[in-house]
Amino acid sequence: MSAPSVHLDTDIGEGFGVWGNLDEAELMGHVSAANIACGFHAGDPDILRRTTSLAAERGVSIGAQVSYRDLAGFGRRFIDVDEATLVNEIVYQIGALQAFARIAGTEVTYVKAHGALYNVAADHVGHAAAIVEAVAIVDPALRLLCQYRTEVWDRAVDRGIEPIAEVFVDRGYTSEGRLVSRKHPGALLTDAEIAARRAVSMVTQREVTSIDGDRVTVAPPAATALALCVHSDTPGAVTMARATEKALLENGFRLAPIGRSE
Amino acid sequence: MSAPSVHLDTDIGEGFGVWGNLDEAELMGHVSAANIACGFHAGDPDILRRTTSLAAERGVSIGAQVSYRDLAGFGRRFIDVDEATLVNEIVYQIGALQAFARIAGTEVTYVKAHGALYNVAADHVGHAAAIVEAVAIVDPALRLLCQYRTEVWDRAVDRGIEPIAEVFVDRGYTSEGRLVSRKHPGALLTDAEIAARRAVSMVTQREVTSIDGDRVTVAPPAATALALCVHSDTPGAVTMARATEKALLENGFRLAPIGRSE
Amino acid sequence: MSAPSVHLDTDIGEGFGVWGNLDEAELMGHVSAANIACGFHAGDPDILRRTTSLAAERGVSIGAQVSYRDLAGFGRRFIDVDEATLVNEIVYQIGALQAFARIAGTEVTYVKAHGALYNVAADHVGHAAAIVEAVAIVDPALRLLCQYRTEVWDRAVDRGIEPIAEVFVDRGYTSEGRLVSRKHPGALLTDAEIAARRAVSMVTQREVTSIDGDRVTVAPPAATALALCVHSDTPGAVTMARATEKALLENGFRLAPIGRSE
Amino acid sequence: MSAPSVHLDTDIGEGFGVWGNLDEAELMGHVSAANIACGFHAGDPDILRRTTSLAAERGVSIGAQVSYRDLAGFGRRFIDVDEATLVNEIVYQIGALQAFARIAGTEVTYVKAHGALYNVAADHVGHAAAIVEAVAIVDPALRLLCQYRTEVWDRAVDRGIEPIAEVFVDRGYTSEGRLVSRKHPGALLTDAEIAARRAVSMVTQREVTSIDGDRVTVAPPAATALALCVHSDTPGAVTMARATEKALLENGFRLAPIGRSE
Repeated sequence: MSAPSVHLDTDIGEGFGVWGNLDEAELMGHVSAANIACGFHAGDPDILRRTTSLAAERGVSIGAQVSYRDLAGFGRRFIDVDEATLVNEIVYQIGALQAFARIAGTEVTYVKAHGALYNVAADHVGHAAAIVEAVAIVDPALRLLCQYRTEVWDRAVDRGIEPIAEVFVDRGYTSEGRLVSRKHPGALLTDAEIAARRAVSMVTQREVTSIDGDRVTVAPPAATALALCVHSDTPGAVTMARATEKALLENGFRLAPIGRSE
Repeated sequence: MSAPSVHLDTDIGEGFGVWGNLDEAELMGHVSAANIACGFHAGDPDILRRTTSLAAERGVSIGAQVSYRDLAGFGRRFIDVDEATLVNEIVYQIGALQAFARIAGTEVTYVKAHGALYNVAADHVGHAAAIVEAVAIVDPALRLLCQYRTEVWDRAVDRGIEPIAEVFVDRGYTSEGRLVSRKHPGALLTDAEIAARRAVSMVTQREVTSIDGDRVTVAPPAATALALCVHSDTPGAVTMARATEKALLENGFRLAPIGRSE
Repeated sequence: MSAPSVHLDTDIGEGFGVWGNLDEAELMGHVSAANIACGFHAGDPDILRRTTSLAAERGVSIGAQVSYRDLAGFGRRFIDVDEATLVNEIVYQIGALQAFARIAGTEVTYVKAHGALYNVAADHVGHAAAIVEAVAIVDPALRLLCQYRTEVWDRAVDRGIEPIAEVFVDRGYTSEGRLVSRKHPGALLTDAEIAARRAVSMVTQREVTSIDGDRVTVAPPAATALALCVHSDTPGAVTMARATEKALLENGFRLAPIGRSE
Repeated sequence: MSAPSVHLDTDIGEGFGVWGNLDEAELMGHVSAANIACGFHAGDPDILRRTTSLAAERGVSIGAQVSYRDLAGFGRRFIDVDEATLVNEIVYQIGALQAFARIAGTEVTYVKAHGALYNVAADHVGHAAAIVEAVAIVDPALRLLCQYRTEVWDRAVDRGIEPIAEVFVDRGYTSEGRLVSRKHPGALLTDAEIAARRAVSMVTQREVTSIDGDRVTVAPPAATALALCVHSDTPGAVTMARATEKALLENGFRLAPIGRSE
């Protein structure tokens, strides 16, 4: 019997112009799925080209990391945009990335919301619906990375889109199962070993301990693969990805890319 | 024997946000090909959605009207961007439009440069090469609308991309076969009847008279279809498109959409 | 004894690049205060230059119409920006406009928030505080145009900034004294004569009838001047401004520019 | 007799949003003039606020580092913008910075073009004229940092604007006295000691040796102060600034801020 699989994903390609063009080749070597910024919170055409190419070379899955239109705020602020406009903004971003993925000889297999949109869609009916609608009209076989027990998760299931439960290696959780805001203490974990152990625990137990000490369910009980996220801009991201990868392998897991639904 | 065909194309979808959202349904009813702005000089996701949908309903071909990244200048200023970056910027724009075309149940069949990029690529080796390279890596079966006897035309032919000779119903020509700059008199024709007669003459004779009275070749001699362009922002664009359409039909031509190369 | 004064203000200079560059000279001839867009929701440097110059020629006061950073949405969407960042964004906009006002031989005398920021600041503590803070640190003698009985009004008074109660000639009111959303019926008044009569009534009685039939207080009882706003993008804005001006003059009022506090 | 003075200036505040927000406090401690990005190639309102405040605390002069409108390209690409538009774009940038300088209790005392605009204005008549015109209409007492024996230098002198000859501590020179393009070898000097010695030599001899071995005049013979530039994004910028400062002091020079013309 083959080892159970898990996805290790990272937000990547998040520079713009002269800024933030880190060497991401090493990080790409330790993950199985790359959430590539599509130009609305970060990412420009040169970065999309380079990052999709790098992912394709490494056999890493390519996901569209879609955002509110907000370069100045890195997509970290809620924007009260119309639902219909948000659908179209997400389509635009996925479409642009698909062109680069095809040039790299591969394809976009999933979508993940970024920053404020990710967090807002956990509860905001209209913006959750917009994400799901955009995926459904572009390609309903695209997977959707999102948190379990959220509005966007439920909407995806209703619409026939297959969500993947994403958990965060490097972020603290509230007792409601949401991420601790970056404005508050406990938002970021920086110790790679602690994070890696917590990651294995999340995969095996499908729970995490919140900053208030409560146990929180982070994934459905079924034997579906989770996605474990390491942010590329977290200090020591490569170290954390490597430690997480190692811990998962030692515990009998296999890092798998994310494929489209069948 | 069927009537010889000609394409009647228009630059369309060139608003942004609250601005310039004209009712383009009527104009769309008189053309066979829509050069849709992709967001770099004009066009936002809502406009792309609406315009591709309108084109699909009317059976009008969809072309990616790609530009320098210049919303503030409407793509009318030369930007000395690196060739490699320009390739990627064009890929990004085509990719975004392709997603909307697919949602509308159709496809992008051609590419046309906008504004300064269109004019610059007539002579600028690097930027002409960038346009051709972008088309070649996205889909070499895409047609390329451009002027005959230009750098970009020759590059396309060399690369195996099939160009379509585009002539302008509503613009004056220099004796070098280039468009008279919008900064100079004689740049725009506004009389629909004169423009329509000149259009028929360009199609049948493959020549036009320049503002200095010289005869200029605007298309290859072979019996390939030309594309006749009416700008949607020219005063009286609908009247001009209708007059041109009528004159072409009366002279035995048939307005044909633009298909991908076979 | 001189006639009691009232300000007639308009949102102006709200194009961008090739878009929306209306001939605003006629409208400028019927108002006493110009709320000039500063580049964050609309307005580019050419428009700022032309509009400040036009205002200076006509003796019309210049106000900074400041907005969330949102060209794509014309400043009509709430953005959950940090208060400190919003302060700086408003300072930036006022500063840019001040340079053009000085070149035109005059000065900025007041500030008005635009669109979503205007409406949000009626209730949102942080964003109301940001507007007031920006005015206070740039020049506390600047007046602040805003609605009476709002968070931003109270904050301004507390901080020693003199607010001017603004009422809308062309917009419907809710029973809470807020503007009817542009998404709902009753948002816009388009009959110039009805609007002008209502304007005079608002000035003399300091009340308006809401869309639900309630009487709403729109200005403090003291004999201070109100500002009556006509939006430049309302259909028939010039007709409405002219009708309002005429009605005010016939009722013994005088249109006065807005000066800085003394 | 007091020591002869020299200005040590640096391009600073060149991040955007989450990107490039370096700790510039240390660099600010070794220069006498800060060329602060104004938002068109880099710099956002938060950065302008922080950087002007830092400069004011350290007694460092504040200059407006103005650019083509090009965040995506960091102002490093020539844009063929209309001269009149360029004037207004520069006015806008200076005005925005002036507001922050006043809040910090100080003022803008000079202007410097950035990147492509800096280099282009050495020869391009229209863009050189635009810079000078913008300075003249905003405040003709502002100094203009630019290279000696350039179009923009001569235009400034003609117009009664006082230029300051700027030389580059960290950049190679061509035999024409221009900077070696960043695309070519020899563009950047990275050895702090060599750079510092060359800086002293430029100040005392008003010449530099080009990459081809020619002696090039970089400043007028008169005993006016030069400005020595260290780019904040050059690797080891702080080390280079410190070494240059030390070498200048050891050679009897004094680092002076840049004041407006009297």
